[in-house]
Amino acid sequence: MELSRTVELAQKLIRIESVTPDDNGCQDLIKEILKPLGFTCYTIEEKGVTNLLATHGRGSPFLLFLGHTDVVPTGDAAEWDHPPFCGEIFDYDGEPYLYGRGSSDMKGGDAAMITAMCEYVKQNQSHIGTIGLLLTSNEEGDAVGGTPYVIDYMKQRHMIPTYCLIGECSCDKLFGDSIKNGRRGDMNATITVHGIQGHAALEQHAKNAVFEASRFIQGMQDNPIDNGTPFFPPTSFQVSNIKAGTGADNVIPGSCTLRCNFRWNDSQTPSLIEKHVRGVAEELKIDCEMEFREEGKPFLTKDGELIDALYNSIRAVTKVTPDLGTSGGTSDGRFVRPLGTQTVEFGPVSDLIHKVNERVSVKQLDMLHEIYLRVIYQLLTHKPITEE
Amino acid sequence: MELSRTVELAQKLIRIESVTPDDNGCQDLIKEILKPLGFTCYTIEEKGVTNLLATHGRGSPFLLFLGHTDVVPTGDAAEWDHPPFCGEIFDYDGEPYLYGRGSSDMKGGDAAMITAMCEYVKQNQSHIGTIGLLLTSNEEGDAVGGTPYVIDYMKQRHMIPTYCLIGECSCDKLFGDSIKNGRRGDMNATITVHGIQGHAALEQHAKNAVFEASRFIQGMQDNPIDNGTPFFPPTSFQVSNIKAGTGADNVIPGSCTLRCNFRWNDSQTPSLIEKHVRGVAEELKIDCEMEFREEGKPFLTKDGELIDALYNSIRAVTKVTPDLGTSGGTSDGRFVRPLGTQTVEFGPVSDLIHKVNERVSVKQLDMLHEIYLRVIYQLLTHKPITEE
Repeated sequence: MELSRTVELAQKLIRIESVTPDDNGCQDLIKEILKPLGFTCYTIEEKGVTNLLATHGRGSPFLLFLGHTDVVPTGDAAEWDHPPFCGEIFDYDGEPYLYGRGSSDMKGGDAAMITAMCEYVKQNQSHIGTIGLLLTSNEEGDAVGGTPYVIDYMKQRHMIPTYCLIGECSCDKLFGDSIKNGRRGDMNATITVHGIQGHAALEQHAKNAVFEASRFIQGMQDNPIDNGTPFFPPTSFQVSNIKAGTGADNVIPGSCTLRCNFRWNDSQTPSLIEKHVRGVAEELKIDCEMEFREEGKPFLTKDGELIDALYNSIRAVTKVTPDLGTSGGTSDGRFVRPLGTQTVEFGPVSDLIHKVNERVSVKQLDMLHEIYLRVIYQLLTHKPITEE
Repeated sequence: MELSRTVELAQKLIRIESVTPDDNGCQDLIKEILKPLGFTCYTIEEKGVTNLLATHGRGSPFLLFLGHTDVVPTGDAAEWDHPPFCGEIFDYDGEPYLYGRGSSDMKGGDAAMITAMCEYVKQNQSHIGTIGLLLTSNEEGDAVGGTPYVIDYMKQRHMIPTYCLIGECSCDKLFGDSIKNGRRGDMNATITVHGIQGHAALEQHAKNAVFEASRFIQGMQDNPIDNGTPFFPPTSFQVSNIKAGTGADNVIPGSCTLRCNFRWNDSQTPSLIEKHVRGVAEELKIDCEMEFREEGKPFLTKDGELIDALYNSIRAVTKVTPDLGTSGGTSDGRFVRPLGTQTVEFGPVSDLIHKVNERVSVKQLDMLHEIYLRVIYQLLTHKPITEE
């Protein structure tokens, strides 16, 4: 089987064990590809994180591709059918898949972005505007020293992207079915519910904090924070962790600690959510303490040339009509959107991100390259590759 | 202030740091008191536990006093107002109290039982029947090698008590207000509730196991196991421990583990309770696994000469009319009752058992001695000390 440049590059990247936040040479490999084509490459290191910012051309419009070279750990490699960093092609249901940690999240997407950029630049040495790439080695971690740090760097130098296209897996069931044009915000809370500790046989003198926590949880489920907005799903409430008890069987616990996660839409603010949650506890007379911490704001790109270009290119290449959606986990797009940049994600289908036997369809990677190339043409030359 | 023999003996016992299961010489001290009076003393050691069985006289009726010399740990001694093993007298609200770990649970009761036995034996060298004392150093622990071991020993030797009186704190608010004539059984269950693990932002693909556990807890509270019986409170359901979550904020937990405790009355059996609990989970379609373990059966002495003697003696000494009750934590009486022995508990008021600043009223200890002495007279001579 002859492999495309996209798939070959993805293979090379997968074979570098770049477990977050260690880039481990991925970006050096990429620089060696970009530099001969005239890209200006900035390596920006901060707090043990390696970032690569590469640009070609100048002025506007500025189309930035955003990706990351770090991957999550493999867990127990014995649970994988093949070595997790092998980067080989295996057939699944008769289709070739590129196999390995990072194949779908997101070295496959990185490779498609890079080969599309390279092909465009080769064909259009003196194009208008700027085409760029930003890669970080700390997307899977806490992002400190990663994308937000480079965005600050760019802001100071007035390098403000007009468009940002992120090659993360975005499709749900069918390649082409979904563009992510935003994400909900993220907030956590630590809630300590109080009862009255006591002996398990003297229940009349105690108040079980687990029962109180359970009443609170039911109250939160009976009172949804909102029902969603035109562009966003409802604000969610989840308990990610719960703990109570001394380990002893004969003690009724006097306190129960919940760690709660909220993914919030554009109808909310952190203080509105906090007010809602405190209101539920007060209404039910739950004795508790709460501490809230905002982790990220919601972001949305309602429409614009980037979505149009992507929509047309996806339809042309896949014959599938994509939906716009804002569900799913947050991405580094949240650091770019506040610049005013049109920011969207489009990448392959994968339900194996962060799981064992992670893999990505070879055909989808090749189509992804084609879609990205068409987007570049449409945005930078205003000469779209017309649909036959 | 002149102290009675009861209080002096209790002081000596408190000053011996006999943290469970270490008797640390308490029983040797007691043997030195009993032996000169003609008691036959058996020291029975098993699995690091020290037990003392002392008897005087022979044949029936056989009145056995049951107690223990071990105490629970003090926790941080700095939280106590005085050294926890000082055994000194301090005034609280103008009343003298004997202070220290073990004062109420149960070296005060031990001392009152011992001084009452000694006084009776001195006054009645050739009494009818048998008077005995069984002390263990593993009542606060798991009882292995303790009371059940000695009860087996006695059974093999056909030493079956007619009556068993236990000097544990039994009174609720007022000294004399309550005789415990039984206790509920004890059972634990480990329940693992399953959901579907997932990303916190992809709630539509996950099922939060904490929410499922919470539904189960609500279901259990909406469906009480029973409403109690003429002699017992309702069978209780408590969650003693709960845990779910990986520590990460962005993962919806796929399983939640509950440790549950049931105190069950004489209308139940372990299998009836298990059926009820499984029924609640099935009705609510909770996906879970359950493991039940019986820890102790309920026991009850409805009536008989022991209760009559105790009732009359309490009224005579305290002018208070006691209630019969079965609430509260289990005691070593559960090992004696299956012999057919009339088994009851009567001792001081205390809400500071197992807590800091544990103490017992000096006046109550002296009255307790008087009550026990009257009970012995009534049961062994059938010549009650008549009420004036």
